[in-house]
Amino acid sequence: MGLAIVTATDDEASAWYVRSITKAAAAVGIAGRVEELGVTATESDIRSMLVKLGDDPGVHGIILQTPLPDGVRSERVSVAIAPEKDVDGANPESFGRLATGLRAFAPATAQAVVELLDHHGIDLHGKHAVVVGRSTVVGKPLAHLLLDRHSTVTIAHSRTHGLAEVTSRGDVVVAAVGRARLITADHVGPVAVVVDVGTNPTPGGGLVGDVDPGVTGKAAALSPVPGGVGPVTTALLLRHTVDVAERAGAAVGS
Amino acid sequence: MGLAIVTATDDEASAWYVRSITKAAAAVGIAGRVEELGVTATESDIRSMLVKLGDDPGVHGIILQTPLPDGVRSERVSVAIAPEKDVDGANPESFGRLATGLRAFAPATAQAVVELLDHHGIDLHGKHAVVVGRSTVVGKPLAHLLLDRHSTVTIAHSRTHGLAEVTSRGDVVVAAVGRARLITADHVGPVAVVVDVGTNPTPGGGLVGDVDPGVTGKAAALSPVPGGVGPVTTALLLRHTVDVAERAGAAVGS
Repeated sequence: MGLAIVTATDDEASAWYVRSITKAAAAVGIAGRVEELGVTATESDIRSMLVKLGDDPGVHGIILQTPLPDGVRSERVSVAIAPEKDVDGANPESFGRLATGLRAFAPATAQAVVELLDHHGIDLHGKHAVVVGRSTVVGKPLAHLLLDRHSTVTIAHSRTHGLAEVTSRGDVVVAAVGRARLITADHVGPVAVVVDVGTNPTPGGGLVGDVDPGVTGKAAALSPVPGGVGPVTTALLLRHTVDVAERAGAAVGS
Repeated sequence: MGLAIVTATDDEASAWYVRSITKAAAAVGIAGRVEELGVTATESDIRSMLVKLGDDPGVHGIILQTPLPDGVRSERVSVAIAPEKDVDGANPESFGRLATGLRAFAPATAQAVVELLDHHGIDLHGKHAVVVGRSTVVGKPLAHLLLDRHSTVTIAHSRTHGLAEVTSRGDVVVAAVGRARLITADHVGPVAVVVDVGTNPTPGGGLVGDVDPGVTGKAAALSPVPGGVGPVTTALLLRHTVDVAERAGAAVGS
C-alpha cells in the first residue's frame, strides 16, 4: 500500500511535515514515497508527475504538498490528481463532489476539524459555526462539511467588517486564516468552542496559531496550535489511503 | 448555435419555464432543442442523452431541467453534462472549479442574484450577506460567488436556530429555501437589500416567493417573485451559450 507525496519547495516546515507523514505512514504499513521536483518545477512538470502517480497501481494516495513554486497555481495542477486517489481532496472535482453530496475525500484538515468536534461530543445541529478564512484547503470545504451537519455557517475573512462582532456570535469558531494570534478573547463568547487551524512560523523557528492563548480564559474550550487538528489531519490522510487500497482490493500491509 | 434542454417530467411549471427559455433563445438566434425523456426515464437514460448532446457539435449549451423522476438524483446524472457546455453550472465538476477559482459557468440563478445586485450598485465588499437555503443550485454556489466579492457570508437553512435574528444581521438577504413567505418584516433590518429567489406554486395556479410582501415596508429594497432574478437567469443561460459557441468558433446566428 503506497502514499505518494509530491513536493516542489525547499521550505523547511514543509519538509518537516512530509517527514512526519511518511513516518506515521510507515508505522501503519503504508509505504511513503516522496517525489521532490524542486523549486524550479513548472506546472507541466507537476501535472506530469501527478498523472504518472495516478496511473501507478502501487500508489493508493496522492498528496500535492504546498507551498508551490512562484507562478504555479494549486488549482491548475491539482486537476491532474486522479480523483479516486485524491486523499487530501485537492482536485477541484473532489471539491464539487463533496459540496454536492457525492462520494469524495474532503481536504484532510477541514475534515479533521469536524472529527475533532465529534470526538468531544460538540453538537453542531442548528448551531452557529463561524469559519474565519476562505481558503480552498480549509475554510471553504469546512463550510460545506458543517452545512452537512446542519450548522448555520458564517464564513468570515480578512475583508470582513467588524470581525470580533461576527465571531462573537459563534457557538463554534474555527480560525483558519493564517494570521498569528488574530483571534483574541475579545473575539469569542463564553459558550464558544474554538478550533485553531492556523500555522504561523515565528522568527525563532517556532509555530503559533491564529488564536491567542488568552482565549482559554474566556471561551468554553480551545483546540490549540501546535497540537489539535494537526495529528488528526495526518491520521485522516492515512485512513483515506487505506480506503483507496481496500477499494482497489489491495492487501493491507502488502 | 444550439441550446439543448433535457426534461424528464410532466410538471406544468417546468414546461412553462422550458417554453420561456426556448422562446427567449429564438429571439436572439439560438436554436432551442427540447429532449423530453418522460417521467419513466432512468438515470441511465438521462446520462446517455446528456453524453449524446455533449458529443453533438451543433449543441453549445446543455440544461438538465428539474424536477427529475423519483429516485433520480440530480448530482449523479449531472456529472454526464460536458463541463464546457454546462451553461447552468450543474455538473459537480463545474461547482468545484467555480469554488476554487477556475473558469466555469456558475448556476445561472445564483449568478443572477449577484448580477442583479451589481446592476443596482449594491456594494458587497466587506458586507454581511445572509443566504437562506443551502441547495446545490442556488444557496451553496451563491455563497461562493459572494465570497469572491469579499462579502462575509452566512448560510442559513431550515435547521437554523433563531432564523429571524440571523437574517436581521444581513446587509443583503437572499431567500432561496422554497418556503412561501418564510421571510417577513421581522426577519430583516432597515438597511437590508432583500432578493427573493423562491418560487412556490399556490393552490390557485399562481406563484409566490419566499419573501412576504410586507418586507417592502421595512427593508431598503426588495427584488420580488415573480420578476426579479427570473428573467436575469434566462438571459444568463443564453449568454453562457453564446460564450460556448464563440469559444467553439461558431458564427453567432448560424
